[in-house]
Amino acid sequence: MELTELKKQCERSKNAAASLRSFGARVSALKTMAAFLRRDTGAILAANAKDMENAAGLSDAMKDRLLLTGERIEAIARSVEFLATLSDPLGDAETKTLENGLRIVKTRVPLGVIAMIYEARPNVTADAAALAVKSGNAVLLRGGKEAINSNLAIAAAIRGALNAAGCDGESVFAVPDTDRETVNTMMSMRGYIDLIIPRGGKGLIGFVTENSKVPVIETGAGNCHVYLHRDADLRKAIDITVNAKTSRPSVCNAAETLLCDRCAAERLLVPVAQELSKRCVTLRCTEEAAEFVPQSEPATEDDFAREYNDMIMAVGLVGGVDEAIAHVNRYGTKHSEAIVTENADAAERFVDGVDAAAVYVNASTRFTDGGVYGLGAEIGISTQKLHVRGPFADEALTTVKYRVYGNGQIR
Amino acid sequence: MELTELKKQCERSKNAAASLRSFGARVSALKTMAAFLRRDTGAILAANAKDMENAAGLSDAMKDRLLLTGERIEAIARSVEFLATLSDPLGDAETKTLENGLRIVKTRVPLGVIAMIYEARPNVTADAAALAVKSGNAVLLRGGKEAINSNLAIAAAIRGALNAAGCDGESVFAVPDTDRETVNTMMSMRGYIDLIIPRGGKGLIGFVTENSKVPVIETGAGNCHVYLHRDADLRKAIDITVNAKTSRPSVCNAAETLLCDRCAAERLLVPVAQELSKRCVTLRCTEEAAEFVPQSEPATEDDFAREYNDMIMAVGLVGGVDEAIAHVNRYGTKHSEAIVTENADAAERFVDGVDAAAVYVNASTRFTDGGVYGLGAEIGISTQKLHVRGPFADEALTTVKYRVYGNGQIR
Repeated sequence: MELTELKKQCERSKNAAASLRSFGARVSALKTMAAFLRRDTGAILAANAKDMENAAGLSDAMKDRLLLTGERIEAIARSVEFLATLSDPLGDAETKTLENGLRIVKTRVPLGVIAMIYEARPNVTADAAALAVKSGNAVLLRGGKEAINSNLAIAAAIRGALNAAGCDGESVFAVPDTDRETVNTMMSMRGYIDLIIPRGGKGLIGFVTENSKVPVIETGAGNCHVYLHRDADLRKAIDITVNAKTSRPSVCNAAETLLCDRCAAERLLVPVAQELSKRCVTLRCTEEAAEFVPQSEPATEDDFAREYNDMIMAVGLVGGVDEAIAHVNRYGTKHSEAIVTENADAAERFVDGVDAAAVYVNASTRFTDGGVYGLGAEIGISTQKLHVRGPFADEALTTVKYRVYGNGQIR
Repeated sequence: MELTELKKQCERSKNAAASLRSFGARVSALKTMAAFLRRDTGAILAANAKDMENAAGLSDAMKDRLLLTGERIEAIARSVEFLATLSDPLGDAETKTLENGLRIVKTRVPLGVIAMIYEARPNVTADAAALAVKSGNAVLLRGGKEAINSNLAIAAAIRGALNAAGCDGESVFAVPDTDRETVNTMMSMRGYIDLIIPRGGKGLIGFVTENSKVPVIETGAGNCHVYLHRDADLRKAIDITVNAKTSRPSVCNAAETLLCDRCAAERLLVPVAQELSKRCVTLRCTEEAAEFVPQSEPATEDDFAREYNDMIMAVGLVGGVDEAIAHVNRYGTKHSEAIVTENADAAERFVDGVDAAAVYVNASTRFTDGGVYGLGAEIGISTQKLHVRGPFADEALTTVKYRVYGNGQIR
């Protein structure tokens, strides 16, 4: 799409979002969205089948992300419905009356127009639209070319639902093309688009973060660590490391690096590495770590900076908690980090010293998730420090407005 | 300063900020800072005298901003002391325990390293240092060349105070040079500096916002409007417009444009314009507005987009509240906007429709201020929507960390 067209669309969508002002309207819109997703399951599956036909060249993991089934659409509908049961992110937050009688009301209001740039997962279309509706925002959805038919079908169902619920469907807009140039144009539209959220692989997120003139929430990249402190319980060390690495290696909260106290490598690293190897995890070890890991590959420094998203783990030894903190802060992506230890002082030192959205003591990094943290749906996991950090949802799509009521007060 | 030097300084300052972890230490540091500012008044005034000597070419307004007196230093010290009485922006905000026993503690933590880029006002050195200390952050202070001697003297007093209070003075660092290149380098230091706050004129703020790779909080620019609705009370219309324009025209919350309902121009604009003219405000009017303003200059479209910071005001007529909202949203800088009306519906429509940090009904735009809003000191007034909006202080210098405590939980 051209700039002038996109500007017009932003204005149309923003005006349409005024129909989402009342909480009642938003709740009813979400319920109708769920109903229409169910009703239009046939049409959405047909569109998805077209995308799957064109997906011959994609990896199995990619195809799995792209694939919709009746069951998956039902799960999406249910999550939209669930969102309708959560509290209103908009409205008056705080009122104070000054001595001169001025009444200052701090109010949460929608950001305005959100743009979502994502890849091949059509469920993002529904999630992002639902969170935008929940928070009274207009949303431009620009998914990957692999999912274009699915995305347009889902967006059509949602727009229909908004209209049927007495709101204006124009507030949700799926970009009908998949030109890279359209993304570039969107990134230049400061003043028209209030926030861009990239969701997907490291390449996409880096590209948008580096180049956007519109404010961005950086999501997702997770080079997460599990650190086995010398006072770790062996059972917990095994369970947590195996879970963090293998339960779903393709996601951002999966662990990528294992650190172990040098003095405890025999007791901890040897059995943990055995369990990982049993589960076909390739271990890339520093020279000294390799002495405790029979079947390992050598690690380069680059391995410690990588997010594998795969059954590979970098392994290194450290001299204690301070060295572990320094390693994590140097190579980590400020996402999720874990220490395994029975030593409360070491745990607190690690939690304080590590600079990340979530720091775990004796628990798997895999828990960093909007659902687990009680947000309902999630838009992503913020790895930046400003505006919002960690898993975020509709509340992060709002800002503050001070409404100030007087009776002629001057200063 | 060179990149490598600046990197080292960031690390030194960040490490030093660990000495500010406890609230007690920060409160005692602030009190000692106030005491040392008083104690070192002589040295600070001597340094300021040097800056004033070099300031011969500057405007009177600039000289006034630069000038320190014993009284002004006492006011600065008092404001640092006052900050010590306000609540802790850091610490546990929310705890929840999941069914599996996992305890999630949402905690407010310092952002890390803040860089302040400002111009000729030496009080910013003390304000920014105090707010950084209050929130446990390291701070790099880079003021304008006009104030370099004053800034270094104030920073020396503050660093001495931190050391005397048992903290590490290195957490506050005043950049000793005033090269433009140092600012460029600082703006490139993503990963070392967590936040840059520009404070000063439009040129500086625009330059930093456009070019920084480090996250920025945009502050300050205020093209604020007063809108006289047809149901305005004349007395309030006069008082509010005169106050918003003339009480301190050089500041960002001063009004720059006056809008009046066309149908009420005779009743409202004529007397309001008279009062403004009496106070030597130059009125730049559209052709139709000029009919109601005897001594006016013609306004170009550009006049409606300008922040004069001077005794000049642009004047235009509108057809009603919707046209006023459209005008404000088109030309405004999302800072502070006011409607004068006795009509509650029109007021609410304006408050809802205008996209700004603060929207006033029957009160002057001049109230947008950290002191008035109860924040103690203020770092600036954010005109962006993400992270913080409106007047902000130490709370905006914090982020969230989720500390999660388990007993071997996996997912």
